[in-house]
Amino acid sequence: MSYFSVTEAQDCILEHASCMNMERVALHDSLNRVLACDVSANRNHPPYDVSAMDGYAVRFADLAEATTDVPVALTVVDDIRAGVMPQVKVLPGKAARIMTGAPVPAGADTVIRVEDTQDAGDRVSILVPQKQGANIRPLGENLRNGEIVLTRGTEITPGVLAILAMVKQKEVSVFARPTVAILSTGDELDSIDEPVDENKIPDANSHALYAQCRSIGITPTLLGIAHDNPIELRAKLAEGLKYDVLLASGGVSVGHHDFMRPMLDALGITMHFWRVAMRPGHPLAFGTSENGLVFGLPGNPVASMVCFEQFVAPACRAMMGHKRLFRRTIMARLAHDVKDRVGRAHFVRVTLSRDEQGYVATSTGAQGSGVLLSMAMADGLMLIPAESEGFKKGDMVTIQLLQGMEFQQAACLQEG
Amino acid sequence: MSYFSVTEAQDCILEHASCMNMERVALHDSLNRVLACDVSANRNHPPYDVSAMDGYAVRFADLAEATTDVPVALTVVDDIRAGVMPQVKVLPGKAARIMTGAPVPAGADTVIRVEDTQDAGDRVSILVPQKQGANIRPLGENLRNGEIVLTRGTEITPGVLAILAMVKQKEVSVFARPTVAILSTGDELDSIDEPVDENKIPDANSHALYAQCRSIGITPTLLGIAHDNPIELRAKLAEGLKYDVLLASGGVSVGHHDFMRPMLDALGITMHFWRVAMRPGHPLAFGTSENGLVFGLPGNPVASMVCFEQFVAPACRAMMGHKRLFRRTIMARLAHDVKDRVGRAHFVRVTLSRDEQGYVATSTGAQGSGVLLSMAMADGLMLIPAESEGFKKGDMVTIQLLQGMEFQQAACLQEG
Repeated sequence: MSYFSVTEAQDCILEHASCMNMERVALHDSLNRVLACDVSANRNHPPYDVSAMDGYAVRFADLAEATTDVPVALTVVDDIRAGVMPQVKVLPGKAARIMTGAPVPAGADTVIRVEDTQDAGDRVSILVPQKQGANIRPLGENLRNGEIVLTRGTEITPGVLAILAMVKQKEVSVFARPTVAILSTGDELDSIDEPVDENKIPDANSHALYAQCRSIGITPTLLGIAHDNPIELRAKLAEGLKYDVLLASGGVSVGHHDFMRPMLDALGITMHFWRVAMRPGHPLAFGTSENGLVFGLPGNPVASMVCFEQFVAPACRAMMGHKRLFRRTIMARLAHDVKDRVGRAHFVRVTLSRDEQGYVATSTGAQGSGVLLSMAMADGLMLIPAESEGFKKGDMVTIQLLQGMEFQQAACLQEG
Repeated sequence: MSYFSVTEAQDCILEHASCMNMERVALHDSLNRVLACDVSANRNHPPYDVSAMDGYAVRFADLAEATTDVPVALTVVDDIRAGVMPQVKVLPGKAARIMTGAPVPAGADTVIRVEDTQDAGDRVSILVPQKQGANIRPLGENLRNGEIVLTRGTEITPGVLAILAMVKQKEVSVFARPTVAILSTGDELDSIDEPVDENKIPDANSHALYAQCRSIGITPTLLGIAHDNPIELRAKLAEGLKYDVLLASGGVSVGHHDFMRPMLDALGITMHFWRVAMRPGHPLAFGTSENGLVFGLPGNPVASMVCFEQFVAPACRAMMGHKRLFRRTIMARLAHDVKDRVGRAHFVRVTLSRDEQGYVATSTGAQGSGVLLSMAMADGLMLIPAESEGFKKGDMVTIQLLQGMEFQQAACLQEG
């Protein structure tokens, strides 16, 4: 039985994770999706030179002699507010009061901030000299009519969504999300809807996977628990194969009571690998059907969750058109020695803290793959490569950030 | 006019951002919310000692002489699958086949992985010695009945949600989310629902703020555009004050046509500050009403977005019971010199790349606050403290990660 490395397994999976078709969605539903078409500007923005400040629109040539000691005094000939086109040209020796966002009037080429002036009714004194063109945002600085402003493949962040709003795309073309079905397998499991049975093990995997899918923007379908009964299991698997991605946890190990493998064959699933050289999570299987991808995830919730982040999330993100597939990693200093056996990549749950030199990573303690609480409390996964015997206290290590929404306690603004 | 520093402004805001009441939500809707009550286990988990591997349950004492050269042979007396309680005790010289997750039978104290054995029908040879207790997950390793497993204030990550599923909390008590209203102000704005008017500026702020709220789990209400008309503005503001948080962008500058300030007073809003010493974004105002918080955000979309991340998101997260309020920061090496004026904290939009030594930050170029595209394309904001004159190429700088969902292109597994 061949063991794929984590990277080999990822490569194999991504080879089969092709981009979904495009669909049209409302602008407000497009956040975190990926543009399936280029988007062009339908206007210049700003539509004209606008003031970037509240102040006075002036002719730069008039300011030649202005210093803090000897201000230049100009006659105020207009009062220009945002949204109103100015009617009066600014002639030599004149100025116009102007608001942020208002059009710069003809004749003027520079805006002086109100803080740098002294107002005396119909006269204004310019106290601080400026560069020519200061405080003016030129026509088309943001967008030029007809030019492509966003390209196919762009992830729709809040800033991108704002640009889509600017060009009035009330609907946008994005890559569809894969449909995902989640199935837990095993006679030992009881579902959240059943009363507590002291002799059974509650199905945590379905819900962990559900939440992980939601974290990447997919609302999956829970198919429930399939018991180790060939008819039931086959029916549930057949149901799951109607989805673009089927996540089946448990049942993919090498045990004697393992119905999964022959059944997958019978259902027309081509299996590409059965195991990955990693801890936790090595009983990870991957196959493809005519319709989509099939992941056989470990029955253990921690292992299943780690595998989701390494394999399922990148595949689903690729299908949704994303280029950034993997969770962000940062470097951190290790707080203590970590010994490891050579042969498998190890994902160690850690918490992160900070000191003057940067992030410090500390193991959450017991790394038994049963200890789900340590997964729940982890800020990230420390990556120990397969060929490493571990790290020493003080070593710089790579930490994969785990949470879908990354926030921290201290602002770290380092203000004086 | 006093200028708060960013930190002073954050402190002032957070003093007024008190935690919301609790509410009950369905488990699957609780992701990213914060627990408002402690949660106790309603069972032991595992409910009994279970095998962590497919293999053989044995008596450790029987293995004393096992070596790779001289295996110990045991008689297989049972075949134990997950979910079925074993009926046969493992006596000296005996072993039971056991599946991952199955209960360890009486008499056995160690599990040998199937890979470390040789099966010969009703006999099994143990090829590799093990420690006593190996491959057994003890009763209660995950959860102990009656013990508190999750405390009030815990953020519901996928791992936490899995634990809630284990203790069958189909509904959970979480802190409510604040209601948020968004209002754009200014005669120069046209809404996404109107046809393109070349002389107007499209309202991007409403949509950027909408998306930023969604990124932190809040679906806000858009109140539309209020023009610079006292009656219309007052009516819209009064409507906005019915929400826990009102975000009003534009109109909070110091210009002559500024209706906002006197009107806020008249509406019973106590203003705490009008300006913050930062770039972009210094016309940031903050007040409180009887009912909630009022933010006066800059009319410029980039400045408004930067202010949202520094001030609004932390306030909303505090109201939702989060302890981690601020976007995560990382250290990166600067790709080029960045000069800066002393006096204001500067948030410079950057993209991140990687080399052997870690992250490299590069300015997105033009930092004019009108350049919304550079905000859309930024991976983060480089923080230049108010007292700094900038940084040199090669300096380590602090980068606030911007995206709500942090993913990257390379897996960075560093596998051999």
